[in-house]
Parts: sequence; C-alpha cells; structure tokens
Amino acid sequence: MIPEPLSRVVSLLSRLPGVGEKSAQRFALFFAFAGPGLAAELGRALCQLHELVEPCSRCNNLAERSSEGPTVCEICRDTRRDDALLCVVAKVQDLFAIERSGAMRGRYYVLGKLLSPLDGIGPDELPLQALSDRVRGGVREVIIATPPSVDGEATALFIARELSALGAQVSRIASGVPHGGDLEFADQVTLGRAIDGRRSVDVP
Amino acid sequence: MIPEPLSRVVSLLSRLPGVGEKSAQRFALFFAFAGPGLAAELGRALCQLHELVEPCSRCNNLAERSSEGPTVCEICRDTRRDDALLCVVAKVQDLFAIERSGAMRGRYYVLGKLLSPLDGIGPDELPLQALSDRVRGGVREVIIATPPSVDGEATALFIARELSALGAQVSRIASGVPHGGDLEFADQVTLGRAIDGRRSVDVP
Repeated sequence: MIPEPLSRVVSLLSRLPGVGEKSAQRFALFFAFAGPGLAAELGRALCQLHELVEPCSRCNNLAERSSEGPTVCEICRDTRRDDALLCVVAKVQDLFAIERSGAMRGRYYVLGKLLSPLDGIGPDELPLQALSDRVRGGVREVIIATPPSVDGEATALFIARELSALGAQVSRIASGVPHGGDLEFADQVTLGRAIDGRRSVDVP
Repeated sequence: MIPEPLSRVVSLLSRLPGVGEKSAQRFALFFAFAGPGLAAELGRALCQLHELVEPCSRCNNLAERSSEGPTVCEICRDTRRDDALLCVVAKVQDLFAIERSGAMRGRYYVLGKLLSPLDGIGPDELPLQALSDRVRGGVREVIIATPPSVDGEATALFIARELSALGAQVSRIASGVPHGGDLEFADQVTLGRAIDGRRSVDVP
C-alpha cells in the first residue's frame, strides 16, 4: 500500500532504538509532507556522517575527523582540564550526561563496552591496554563511572584491580537514591546501596 | 561538546513529530555507532524520497512518481475497487488506517487539510473543485471520514452540503465508544454521540 521508496525509509527508521513500525511510518510521512528540504538535508547529513565524525584517538569520544594527524576530540584538546583526573565511562552518551552535570573537570576514557559473559564479552575485549597506557602517562585518580548494573559493577571491579596495580587512586561513583527521588518507591538494591554508602554529616 | 556534523543530524531529527532533543541525540548516536551502512543507506533513501514519491494525481495519496504521464497510486489503479464509492479523508495516514481495517472497497480522496479558522484555513483552501469533479464523474456514495474533532466536523458538514447538491448520497463515519473501550472512562461527548448514533437491534 505504501510506495516502495517510502517503505524503505520506514524500514530503515524502524531500526532506531525505541522506534516501532508505527512511529517509523509517522516519521517517513512527515518527511514526505514536510517538503523536499528537510529530507534532502538530513539525507546529505547522514551520508556524510561517517566521513566527518570518528572516535577520538585518545578517549574514544566522538569527534570531527582531522585531516592532519589523528582525530582528537574537544575535551581532549581543552587545555584547562586536569590531566591527572580520568573518568572511565561505558559509552559516549554517559560522557555527555556527566559533562552536562558540570561535575567533572578532568579527562575521559570511553570503554565502548562492558564485561558481559552472556554476550560473550570477556576481559580480553575491553581496551585495557590503552587505558593502562593512559593511566601510566600521569593519571593520579581514576573515577570509574560505569553504570550501577551487574555488568557495570563487574567491569568496575575488574578495571579497579588492574589500575590500582599501576599505583593510581581508583574511585567509583556513588550509587543511591537519586536527587528528588522518593524513598517509598526506590528498589531494595538502591536503598541498600544508599545505606551502605552513607556519609557522616559534619555539623558546623 | 557534540561534533558539528553530528549535532546537525540531531537538530534535523528533532524536527520530527514527538522527537525532542534527547531522543534526537539518541538516534544520532545510534547512527554514529551502528556502522556507516545504516546512516548512508537512510541518507540516500531520504535524498531520493521526493524524486521518487509524489501525491497521486487523482486522490492525493502518496505514490511512486511515474515517468510516463501523471502519477497514479496503487489504490486508484486497482481495477477491483468500486468506482461509485468514495471515501474522503483528511490525511494520507487516515487512508492507511482505513485500509488496514479492510472495511473500504471503494476509492479515496485525501483533502490534505481541514477547515480551521484559527489557522486561517477557510473554504477556499479546500480542494473542493477537484472533489466535485470527481463526484460528478460517477460517484454514488461519499463517505466522509474526517476526524470527529471540531475542525473535522465542520469540514464534514461543509463538504456534505456541497456534494449533496450534486446528487450524491453523503454519509459520515460513526462516532461512539471504541471497540474494547470502557464506558466508565469515555468522555461525555463520545458517550453523547454513542447514544445519539444508536442503532436498532434486529432480534432474529
């Protein structure tokens, strides 16, 4: 019923995370009726995306591809950041989230994956060599900001053990009840962590 | 923080209906990490979309552009359909929805807009001339399937008046409690319509 060039767009859009057949059709029809400008502009931007953007050679964050020498992202180029403080994250989205918080003034390292026995990702798949080289190059403290999931915790523990042996101070981000969250609706594990990770209150 | 070629994709994707900044970023990063294949394929499909697809010259449904003569959609080409039964809808999405129901064996006409004084769309903006010509060409019954909203009802009434004058039998789709819906949670207008539109039950 849907013309073939349009149904091709629908089937490609439905591969996006959280986008089903119906949303994909809604998006495709929006492109069809929004005039040729939007579809063509996004089309060109998508065709060029992988030519213009690639992972940073130092931290794996996404960066504009450099024509001269290795690609280095904006954060790695920023001279005002603390080279001795390194935050290890699972994926680029997590780096963006931490940057939005404004709480991290050091550098990052994006692992790109987590230990996951079920998905066949073992210690050999982690970029541990590159991370170790980075830490040896003058990092004082490593903050492990992998997610507080089973895979994230396992990865944090594994990395912490390897990096501590290099003499770096290794810390893990806190896990507990989120800001504005309701204790009544927090799950048991989160509450357990909030209690375990309690901090003494200094009364002035 | 996000490299420019990627943030361009984010800003274009965020124009899609129901897609905010955060979802657009999620989609863009998915394209960046899914390998170059998906982005390039969708990119090409979007660039070609408006070259390959245009409204049907008879009913305004979307169709593959014809290289010889005017573009005619699959439904208008289908010889098994009843030429004397015409269903008038507001937009192509509504045509797709009615087709999925399998309840319509006639032809369609897509208005593309509804009367909307607030948006400055008056009777002159509706494609009434083309619709009248279509009805004069041998249509026995017109089913008006504009949505049961204020604009949809106003448009239905206006079209019904114009087309009745041409001698066609004009009907309006039923409005009431949807199948599987709960009377308890139906709004007053819907329940009022369900009562007004009641049909006698024939006991066999």
